Amino acid sequence: MERLSSKDVLRADQFSTEEIDRILETARRYEAALEAGEILDALRGKVLATLFYEPSTRTRLSFEAAMLRLSGRVVSVAEAKSSSAAKGESLHDTIRTVEGYADVIVLRHPQIGAAEEAARATHVPILNAGDGAGQHPTQSLLDLYTIVKEQGTVDGLTVALAGDLKNGRTVHSLADLLADYGIEFVFASPEALRMPNEIVDRLCSKGMPVRETESLTDAIAACDVLYMTRIQRERFDDPREYDRLKDAYILDREMLAGGKESMTIMHPLPRVNEIATDVDGLPGAAYFRQAANGVPIRMALLAMVAG
Amino acid sequence: MERLSSKDVLRADQFSTEEIDRILETARRYEAALEAGEILDALRGKVLATLFYEPSTRTRLSFEAAMLRLSGRVVSVAEAKSSSAAKGESLHDTIRTVEGYADVIVLRHPQIGAAEEAARATHVPILNAGDGAGQHPTQSLLDLYTIVKEQGTVDGLTVALAGDLKNGRTVHSLADLLADYGIEFVFASPEALRMPNEIVDRLCSKGMPVRETESLTDAIAACDVLYMTRIQRERFDDPREYDRLKDAYILDREMLAGGKESMTIMHPLPRVNEIATDVDGLPGAAYFRQAANGVPIRMALLAMVAG
Amino acid sequence: MERLSSKDVLRADQFSTEEIDRILETARRYEAALEAGEILDALRGKVLATLFYEPSTRTRLSFEAAMLRLSGRVVSVAEAKSSSAAKGESLHDTIRTVEGYADVIVLRHPQIGAAEEAARATHVPILNAGDGAGQHPTQSLLDLYTIVKEQGTVDGLTVALAGDLKNGRTVHSLADLLADYGIEFVFASPEALRMPNEIVDRLCSKGMPVRETESLTDAIAACDVLYMTRIQRERFDDPREYDRLKDAYILDREMLAGGKESMTIMHPLPRVNEIATDVDGLPGAAYFRQAANGVPIRMALLAMVAG
Repeated sequence: MERLSSKDVLRADQFSTEEIDRILETARRYEAALEAGEILDALRGKVLATLFYEPSTRTRLSFEAAMLRLSGRVVSVAEAKSSSAAKGESLHDTIRTVEGYADVIVLRHPQIGAAEEAARATHVPILNAGDGAGQHPTQSLLDLYTIVKEQGTVDGLTVALAGDLKNGRTVHSLADLLADYGIEFVFASPEALRMPNEIVDRLCSKGMPVRETESLTDAIAACDVLYMTRIQRERFDDPREYDRLKDAYILDREMLAGGKESMTIMHPLPRVNEIATDVDGLPGAAYFRQAANGVPIRMALLAMVAG
Repeated sequence: MERLSSKDVLRADQFSTEEIDRILETARRYEAALEAGEILDALRGKVLATLFYEPSTRTRLSFEAAMLRLSGRVVSVAEAKSSSAAKGESLHDTIRTVEGYADVIVLRHPQIGAAEEAARATHVPILNAGDGAGQHPTQSLLDLYTIVKEQGTVDGLTVALAGDLKNGRTVHSLADLLADYGIEFVFASPEALRMPNEIVDRLCSKGMPVRETESLTDAIAACDVLYMTRIQRERFDDPREYDRLKDAYILDREMLAGGKESMTIMHPLPRVNEIATDVDGLPGAAYFRQAANGVPIRMALLAMVAG
Repeated sequence: MERLSSKDVLRADQFSTEEIDRILETARRYEAALEAGEILDALRGKVLATLFYEPSTRTRLSFEAAMLRLSGRVVSVAEAKSSSAAKGESLHDTIRTVEGYADVIVLRHPQIGAAEEAARATHVPILNAGDGAGQHPTQSLLDLYTIVKEQGTVDGLTVALAGDLKNGRTVHSLADLLADYGIEFVFASPEALRMPNEIVDRLCSKGMPVRETESLTDAIAACDVLYMTRIQRERFDDPREYDRLKDAYILDREMLAGGKESMTIMHPLPRVNEIATDVDGLPGAAYFRQAANGVPIRMALLAMVAG
């Protein structure tokens, strides 16, 4: 197993495209082995500690399953805030302590920069499982992995990101990650929830075609991949604006009639009502496969930092 | 390992008597192997997810120990309600997600029918670890297993179910399960907490002798197996009625003087005060052995759906 | 693996010095094996149940990691009070139930004597992971192990215990444990938080030299090992007394200038502010190594009761 160039996995933009290729290739290999019923043991004898300062069942289980699928073992703090931190311990001290118990640490924390702070505190690899409004790099990588698996490639695709593009950590990271490939972007959102200028400018400066629209239907007509996110009432200053817009961003079969049959529909989950359940049966409805892709991606990353 | 006829374990009445025989036989074999110090590996490389929407330490630990005793591995959500469900995710979506992480799912949920809903959502086996006032099939099977182990057989026994027979999921399922064997039933309860007519009628229509009594002492005089459950104050409209009756349903050594020496005393646990601790030392006090029997039964079921 | 003379690990003073030597020697061997990358399997096929009636991430993770490092497996109740106990179940019954699932039980409980009560209830080994203001024997052993590792020996050392010596379970147990070695004690605390007379008398009756001081600086000048604990405002009847004293018990680099270069600085963690972070970089700052030493010590104990 070739190591990552960094001790840690902290940000989606820390990887070169070559390194991303290696991660995806490793994930692909692991996924095939699991499907063939092989028992893998790249992390036999290793212990992962999952430290979650806010609950995230999906991410925690996915990391833990990944570790177990490589014959590693897991100790877990599902609600870290109710324990040592409550006694006034700093994140630095918690990490210095847990490094004595584990070979690799997965950290979820509500504060931006927490994972980087943790990584500086220890020689043990830190995997960032979300630091507030900051980064969630394993999500971005599994999103990319899903696009490649579903569409065969990422180059040349038109990718629509839809919903709340202002506040969504997921879509920000994914946009940045895709910017190293030959993508056309469509950003579909209410005016009040537009993709931040900073990100749009960055993409444009890299020569990526970017189109913004308020119409989800327009985005559907154009795209190969539709990445939906949820619009939350509390994000609007004016609740009437929310009421005016909310239905326009609920995806159902009818709206999809105007799109390509080969379209891949993604969502970071959990969904509430932003994708009607009648969409689930479509061949391109990839969101549950996308969630499952978290396991091989996290297997690859765990093996490449702790193997 | 022969598979169950169903993908899932949802209800106590889903099994034919032949299938129950196979489950008990498999449990017996596993129990003997554990006692002989063997390390079993029927589920090596498999991952179980335990999803508990209400806490149940006993049931969760028992399932997890069963999985580990077969060399399987476990990811666990001890308090599922505080996680994705809190973000508005449907049970369907949670199950569709977790199926990407695990080979088999154990679900505890406060709502009747939740396990069946989960089973329909996924191709992964679902084991119902209690769905509110509904079913708890692994409890019924371990109860049956306990009777057979303690008495050598189930046929021809007189089984008394005592306490709150109106609200007790456990006794309802057990009565239905035993109805396929040659049992005489005694139902001992306060009038207000009688076994529902629906169940009594079902047993009678199968030709099972059923006797109802308000007297625990009467039941003790007649039975080979005494299955105690707790009477809770909040179940009574009239608290004076509770005060009048509660002591009559507290089992102690003195009350047992009128019963058979070979009597088996069972309880689903936890107990509060409905069995005096002086009973614990009797050879027939089987309730802690009954709890322990959950492990081989759950090993058998896990192996037969996921092996 | 030679067994302990007792089925359980309940109190720091249950061990003879010969037994302590064996525990430390086993821990040393395990630590060396782990450092050499060996995969140990003394507890393959065994299941540990960790039952924590109050949260203690550090202690729980350390025990669980220890079990996993010996190829054992773990079922865990991180917050036991919210489960069966909430339904009115006695500790006795909980233990009698869990003994059916596990080969060894680690118990953390807020009440003094809880571990001994649990040990009497079951034939399964109980390891006391802290019973309120009572005992925490694995902490005392890892403290001793740390002193030996850091200083090469324990005999002939001057050991200063500092901070709140009145309420600290940790320092009480450690003082008693060290009393069987040739130690000179310095107890540095505010007058209101002095080491209880009972313990001082016991040490004196064993012929141990004991010196008490209010000055942390005095203690530093004399000692080979400085064991810091936290002073909590709520322990003082008079808050002005707290304000007068608190700064005098915050250790920083400047205060250490008057001490030996070879001094070992220990702390049971978590710390809040009682050791300035500028101390962390000193070669003698051993508190994170001390935490890590919990793993080999607990491996040794688990193997010696359940192997």
